[in-house]
Amino acid sequence: MAAKKFGFAVLGLGNMGGVHVHNLMTSARASVQWLVRSKVKEAEQFVTSLGLSARCAAPSDLDLVLDDPSVDAVVVCSPTDVHEDQIKRSLSAGKAVFCEKPITSDKDSTAVCYDLAETSRQPLFCAFHRRFDPSFQQVQCDVRRGTLGALKLIRCSSHDQHYPPITYIRSSGGIVKDSTIHDLDMSLWLSGSRPRRVLCQGQAFDPEVGACGDFDLVVVTVLFDNGVVAVLDNGRQSSQAYDQRLEVMCEKGGYQVSNQPTLLSAALTPDSTCVPPSHSSFATRYEQAYRAEMEHFLDVLQGRAELAVTRHDTLAAMSLADAVTQAARTQQPVDL
Amino acid sequence: MAAKKFGFAVLGLGNMGGVHVHNLMTSARASVQWLVRSKVKEAEQFVTSLGLSARCAAPSDLDLVLDDPSVDAVVVCSPTDVHEDQIKRSLSAGKAVFCEKPITSDKDSTAVCYDLAETSRQPLFCAFHRRFDPSFQQVQCDVRRGTLGALKLIRCSSHDQHYPPITYIRSSGGIVKDSTIHDLDMSLWLSGSRPRRVLCQGQAFDPEVGACGDFDLVVVTVLFDNGVVAVLDNGRQSSQAYDQRLEVMCEKGGYQVSNQPTLLSAALTPDSTCVPPSHSSFATRYEQAYRAEMEHFLDVLQGRAELAVTRHDTLAAMSLADAVTQAARTQQPVDL
Amino acid sequence: MAAKKFGFAVLGLGNMGGVHVHNLMTSARASVQWLVRSKVKEAEQFVTSLGLSARCAAPSDLDLVLDDPSVDAVVVCSPTDVHEDQIKRSLSAGKAVFCEKPITSDKDSTAVCYDLAETSRQPLFCAFHRRFDPSFQQVQCDVRRGTLGALKLIRCSSHDQHYPPITYIRSSGGIVKDSTIHDLDMSLWLSGSRPRRVLCQGQAFDPEVGACGDFDLVVVTVLFDNGVVAVLDNGRQSSQAYDQRLEVMCEKGGYQVSNQPTLLSAALTPDSTCVPPSHSSFATRYEQAYRAEMEHFLDVLQGRAELAVTRHDTLAAMSLADAVTQAARTQQPVDL
Amino acid sequence: MAAKKFGFAVLGLGNMGGVHVHNLMTSARASVQWLVRSKVKEAEQFVTSLGLSARCAAPSDLDLVLDDPSVDAVVVCSPTDVHEDQIKRSLSAGKAVFCEKPITSDKDSTAVCYDLAETSRQPLFCAFHRRFDPSFQQVQCDVRRGTLGALKLIRCSSHDQHYPPITYIRSSGGIVKDSTIHDLDMSLWLSGSRPRRVLCQGQAFDPEVGACGDFDLVVVTVLFDNGVVAVLDNGRQSSQAYDQRLEVMCEKGGYQVSNQPTLLSAALTPDSTCVPPSHSSFATRYEQAYRAEMEHFLDVLQGRAELAVTRHDTLAAMSLADAVTQAARTQQPVDL
Repeated sequence: MAAKKFGFAVLGLGNMGGVHVHNLMTSARASVQWLVRSKVKEAEQFVTSLGLSARCAAPSDLDLVLDDPSVDAVVVCSPTDVHEDQIKRSLSAGKAVFCEKPITSDKDSTAVCYDLAETSRQPLFCAFHRRFDPSFQQVQCDVRRGTLGALKLIRCSSHDQHYPPITYIRSSGGIVKDSTIHDLDMSLWLSGSRPRRVLCQGQAFDPEVGACGDFDLVVVTVLFDNGVVAVLDNGRQSSQAYDQRLEVMCEKGGYQVSNQPTLLSAALTPDSTCVPPSHSSFATRYEQAYRAEMEHFLDVLQGRAELAVTRHDTLAAMSLADAVTQAARTQQPVDL
Repeated sequence: MAAKKFGFAVLGLGNMGGVHVHNLMTSARASVQWLVRSKVKEAEQFVTSLGLSARCAAPSDLDLVLDDPSVDAVVVCSPTDVHEDQIKRSLSAGKAVFCEKPITSDKDSTAVCYDLAETSRQPLFCAFHRRFDPSFQQVQCDVRRGTLGALKLIRCSSHDQHYPPITYIRSSGGIVKDSTIHDLDMSLWLSGSRPRRVLCQGQAFDPEVGACGDFDLVVVTVLFDNGVVAVLDNGRQSSQAYDQRLEVMCEKGGYQVSNQPTLLSAALTPDSTCVPPSHSSFATRYEQAYRAEMEHFLDVLQGRAELAVTRHDTLAAMSLADAVTQAARTQQPVDL
Repeated sequence: MAAKKFGFAVLGLGNMGGVHVHNLMTSARASVQWLVRSKVKEAEQFVTSLGLSARCAAPSDLDLVLDDPSVDAVVVCSPTDVHEDQIKRSLSAGKAVFCEKPITSDKDSTAVCYDLAETSRQPLFCAFHRRFDPSFQQVQCDVRRGTLGALKLIRCSSHDQHYPPITYIRSSGGIVKDSTIHDLDMSLWLSGSRPRRVLCQGQAFDPEVGACGDFDLVVVTVLFDNGVVAVLDNGRQSSQAYDQRLEVMCEKGGYQVSNQPTLLSAALTPDSTCVPPSHSSFATRYEQAYRAEMEHFLDVLQGRAELAVTRHDTLAAMSLADAVTQAARTQQPVDL
Repeated sequence: MAAKKFGFAVLGLGNMGGVHVHNLMTSARASVQWLVRSKVKEAEQFVTSLGLSARCAAPSDLDLVLDDPSVDAVVVCSPTDVHEDQIKRSLSAGKAVFCEKPITSDKDSTAVCYDLAETSRQPLFCAFHRRFDPSFQQVQCDVRRGTLGALKLIRCSSHDQHYPPITYIRSSGGIVKDSTIHDLDMSLWLSGSRPRRVLCQGQAFDPEVGACGDFDLVVVTVLFDNGVVAVLDNGRQSSQAYDQRLEVMCEKGGYQVSNQPTLLSAALTPDSTCVPPSHSSFATRYEQAYRAEMEHFLDVLQGRAELAVTRHDTLAAMSLADAVTQAARTQQPVDL
């Protein structure tokens, strides 16, 4: 018998919207029913070019989409400022919600969304995709199992290759909430403990970024209740590649996750041995993770799995991001 | 406007059939119209499980499939002994043909197939997939451009991780024609020259393989007209991984293509630093190559590209494989 | 004509004393005249076992050594608390001085030693050996040349493999002055700027270390006047190896210095690919650096080079270490 | 008590003579008594520059050297054509002999030298230095122990970076006896078996080499009695580095020995990640091996070890080299 196919509406067709549509298209358990985008024409062209049978609608017609009984779940990839409204309406309409980080821009409204998910008996999934990367997963799994003894130190380096547009930065809520939050979530996930104290040194190499009161590089130190120390460096620009690395040091050894060259070839000359650069963006680096998080969401829809990112996880990452933001701005340690 | 979708019939649903169906499914330019398999029931289950709309038929109903005007192209992944018949009927029916290696089991009938392709004005593509691996491509491209001077030496190691069933080996036509032919094609592709002389040392570590008059390891040396020497080791069993490596040495430097670990993580202990093993099979190692060769075939169908594997390429690889087979059996050098 | 051989007295025969004696023995420009050690018998056995012709003396007989006109230079590898006295007496006796870090335990007395060196017209060399490691040197050279644009971020990880004895820790002056000072010196050397602000999070995983009021792990962030940020993690115990790594991120790319496996071999199995662990101690990891710093000192003695570690360098590292120590203890940022 | 120091005479001061003198100088168990070289003046300058106390003599004064009772052992690094005479006179004078490969240019006279060593009760050591490289040793040790099951395939790549002078090539006895013999010895050492059959394809890229009747690249296949297959590629010129790699494939896994980059640093840009090239010559690549083989010889002198390279080993390598030379010249397989 055919696997039940869950019907999806995808709200927003930016970078992440495209990734999720692709993964839904190639999943045997999903069918894309609606694409919702302000520029409806472009959505329609997109649908045609891919040979999809999905319908397209503007955000103003969201009710139409949510009234469609073939829609089981909604993927929210729209700008952050409309998340709250779209999540609430979707949950109220009895739809499961997969939402790009952040759920909303503040903890209180995020908590309200989770409350509504609970009363609606629908899953609300916050897409901390790195938790679904198989290399990070193997490390986290081994760390939590204690294979190499107790965890002592987490080192996480994550840097975009190119600056985003300054307009993006202006509306991003600051690098910490926009970007470092992934590293903070990784630290929480790996340490399995509560943060006690954070230090942060921010820097703005690009004066335009500085003029926004924001940073393009932050170095964060987190001390956890169980003694684990995390040190994170996160930046908006790293010429050599999209840099996403992790190291953990345990009592009896450690783990490292490296960047991945885009090809397997090397050129050898009398001067050097050169390999191609690593991935330049999240789309290729986290291809497996994006696929895996969607398959996880489908598992949840099928009742085969519990949400791997809980209300508690989401709120803990947001609280920690708030503390780090404060530490960056006040240039003082913040105790939690 | 929507891209024209080419309709496909896939003949055979073994390992490669599954790979090609997947790539056709996720291509915006293709739609799978028919799956042809002796076990029609299993083909139907497969279709249902993937949510495909393709129809299924037994090989005996091939005419029905070829009469379908929605079928533009046929992918031949069936056992080698039916290739010739299926290719001829498909070409005669005006269908383009994508065929797993080998086109047929001997050069003469292969030449006849290419003749028919020419008179039918349909492409006949021999799926030497390694030519579409981006790492091998980069090396070949640089070698042919002469970036590091003239080519001198090609070293190619290719080994399956696990022995295939002995039944497979018995009907394989021998390791050279079944497996080494890929390495021989690589040598021809890289050297851009004609082979002059071959040496081969075969070995059968598994007595069952030896009892078939076959080898499970061959070491082949090829001397080309332009002076290039190729040394190839090819085997049926390499415990550590599916081993697919290439090295070339040129006048001013060289290139290497390595195996790829399946994860980016490493575990460090006082005793060692360990990374996960490399890919265990062609399906994951050559995922990109299989996708790229199908996209290439679609480019050919659209008139955007010439066939990258020509009649000459296919026949040259077969001739070379014949010579190596003779060298292995007679234990003498063979001059071409 | 034979190269002039400079006569050396080596004071102290601990780990570093042994390293320096070896390098002096194998240098064509040096001869070891005296070994000074409290346990004179052991020094004599050492001399005999190596077939050296050096004489041995107790520290109380230092004047005898310094009166010997065949002694051109003194290598101070004795415990820190006798450095000041030995340096002053050696300089006053007209001997050049090569001194293991630190010159003395505080800045004022160190400045006095440098004053005396100036008036004695003798070099006083502070052995920041990492500056002589060829890999670090290449990075520093490229950074200062600006090959990849302006420096933005320095990441430095340095960890001993095994805890030193607690007695060592008690008399070490604290991890920052004893160990992190090398990383701080590296940051100064790489950034070429003045530190403006430091943050530090210390941790004591071993309660015995904590009971000393010390840390066995520190994470330090330094902001420099030119905008460069350095993040350093330094620890007393890292099971997997003696961990000595450096990364720098510049505007147009970056550099990394890795650990070095002790062998070139790898073992491949279906489960993993394993290489031997990296060096377990400074003696092998910095073998080249120790040799190079001694050859540099001999160059200085020959008048062929200026001291590569200046009075300014030494005092700057000490000041920075003081600030970091304060930051670690007060748990507050320290502005310089 | 002081270790007994063995007195050495070093005959010949070419590349290898310099290496051995250095290792003897820095060994606690050896002292260099004599350097024998045609250009005595240069030997004297060498002695002076290193501050050695050795005396110098011309080869014509060898008797003077051999009459010196302070000489316990002779290191033969002179041109091959005088090996036999120098070895015989040294053994007859009761001196132990350490001899660079080959002992002599043919098997018969080599056997005579070993006969004489036996009657003189003096060790005659053939310096197959690769057996003393710690990485190769670990692999060989594991292979012979059967850690990963029975050995199946040996792959060995060894290439000099630069062509030697054509005068050297003319008097070298051919690439196989001069260079490939090291790879052949490795195969014998690793396989622990007798060669049964060899294939060889030679090539001369440099016409001057071809005009000598020699090759600058050979690819050799050896089949051993125990079923092991070895494939060796050996060449006179490999632009990228001094290439010395080994791979073995066993039933349950394999081993690889890689080249070693000369620095630990990498430069990362948007275009590539580059590491420094590997060693450019034997002197640095095999630094540890040369030291270890001399220490092994000293162990033999002290009665602490049996010769690790036996008469049988030396003659087996020579026989195999003869067979390969024949296979290269006749272009036919040779059965042993």
